[in-house]
Amino acid sequence: MIRLKVPATTANLGSGFDTLGMALSLYNIFTIKEILPEGEYTCEISGEGVDELADASKNMLVTSYIKACNEWNVPVKGFAFESCNAVPLNRGLGSSSTAVVAGVVLADLLSGANKSENELLRVMTKIEGHPDNVVPCYIGGMTVSCWDGEVLRCVKLPALPDDLNVIAAVPDFQVHTEDARKILPDSVPFKDAVFNVSHASILCAAWAMGKWDLLRVGMEDRLHQPHRAKLFPGSTGEKFLREIANHPDCVATAISGSGPTMIAIVHGKAGKLSQAMCKIFTEGGAASHFFVLNCASSGTVVES
Amino acid sequence: MIRLKVPATTANLGSGFDTLGMALSLYNIFTIKEILPEGEYTCEISGEGVDELADASKNMLVTSYIKACNEWNVPVKGFAFESCNAVPLNRGLGSSSTAVVAGVVLADLLSGANKSENELLRVMTKIEGHPDNVVPCYIGGMTVSCWDGEVLRCVKLPALPDDLNVIAAVPDFQVHTEDARKILPDSVPFKDAVFNVSHASILCAAWAMGKWDLLRVGMEDRLHQPHRAKLFPGSTGEKFLREIANHPDCVATAISGSGPTMIAIVHGKAGKLSQAMCKIFTEGGAASHFFVLNCASSGTVVES
Repeated sequence: MIRLKVPATTANLGSGFDTLGMALSLYNIFTIKEILPEGEYTCEISGEGVDELADASKNMLVTSYIKACNEWNVPVKGFAFESCNAVPLNRGLGSSSTAVVAGVVLADLLSGANKSENELLRVMTKIEGHPDNVVPCYIGGMTVSCWDGEVLRCVKLPALPDDLNVIAAVPDFQVHTEDARKILPDSVPFKDAVFNVSHASILCAAWAMGKWDLLRVGMEDRLHQPHRAKLFPGSTGEKFLREIANHPDCVATAISGSGPTMIAIVHGKAGKLSQAMCKIFTEGGAASHFFVLNCASSGTVVES
Repeated sequence: MIRLKVPATTANLGSGFDTLGMALSLYNIFTIKEILPEGEYTCEISGEGVDELADASKNMLVTSYIKACNEWNVPVKGFAFESCNAVPLNRGLGSSSTAVVAGVVLADLLSGANKSENELLRVMTKIEGHPDNVVPCYIGGMTVSCWDGEVLRCVKLPALPDDLNVIAAVPDFQVHTEDARKILPDSVPFKDAVFNVSHASILCAAWAMGKWDLLRVGMEDRLHQPHRAKLFPGSTGEKFLREIANHPDCVATAISGSGPTMIAIVHGKAGKLSQAMCKIFTEGGAASHFFVLNCASSGTVVES
């Protein structure tokens, strides 16, 4: 029996589109119960996605497992697995990345291929299409990634200190990834590109050097969030980026992934800021719930 | 008598347009010999700029000094100074920033205003117009800066380790800053903006965490260098960015400032790479000379 504890992730963080991502202390637990003949897969889902994920052969854990086996040209086994999911589906918290990461790790473990961390990350990124969820999902912490379609480079930064938590406010509507891609412009003003370069740079440098008071400014973004905020009902998105960023308890805020979850890094107690975040969704006509999480420094954990 | 030892800087580093800069172990030494009545300035120049900098009242040290005094509303004194210059003029090594930094530091010292480091940096940046030369020039090391026209944020990263040097290859032609600005486009493809965001982010993260093998990729740029390389004679600029980056001794290369100096970070002995850099200038029809320098961790030093 193999058990994988795989964290949620928040990616596309602020100024760091396709680059910055962080592992969060909210987990999907995948358990391999039994090895089956090639091509046979069964699953039992509990928690998030009970209906959507019931077909084992279409489950991304299985499809990613098969892709990784084929990538490495190793035998493809069948298996029965349980998936106990705490990460909400299609909300910008990297639930599909948990399945990709688990599938690739399983391909390595079940075949005995014993690939390097970098090779595992490369295949995960190739399957997912972008690095900023799968990299922190696998190695944990806050990560900076750069993917040219073939080679992955990444750097893991220190985890957030214990007195900084991450609130994830999750509304009950979805933003479709395709819409979130389509709304991005083909070109941007030169000065906006430079704005994001300087802000992402100071965010990474501040994070690495523990200068947490610079996170708010470093997270400011002109490339994707102003566009994607428009996909939220009413003016919910714009309100978030304006009002939550200036809340006295807020260290920094961003759209998580391509939305609609909003995250905020909070100093100390999270009660007031969590309420303020959910209130904005309520005013926009959407129900929501929230998690108060930590930056998960250890990433995916394998227990066998 | 006050003596200021002020370092050269290399800015606009690779992917970090208007953001990343590094202090180099090549110095202009400014010595205040005598306090004179308001409005009276005399200078003696030696080394670089003997002809260009002879008129004391137009010297940027003096004009920056007066601007800083006015900014703080403190008395403006006159003075006689010596300027012993090792930093080449108008070559992209921050010679004007040495004068701006010295002028602002003098305004603080001679008035007894005793301003904070952050206020000194703010005024230096306001006078210079951008932060990426004056910030490392004053505080040393490799710096990440973000300037919104009013507030300056900056983070100092660790200096390069002792076994990494910086070659500056300085040709005998100039690139006019105005041409270097004008050649930049008004807008850029979204994917090029994201390219620079991810590369500048990984450069900052790698530098902070000492992952020196990632500097070469982190320095790759699509925003300014491909345009500015065209201002070099023949295909000198393009050749540099292509051939020097792939030289076996080269850790990373970039146009210094807005050019025409090219810098390369080199591992160990610098002889072969220095020759290769100067050879490209020679083939382009330009004479050149080179310096082998360190990252200067201490910035501007005041001796009185």
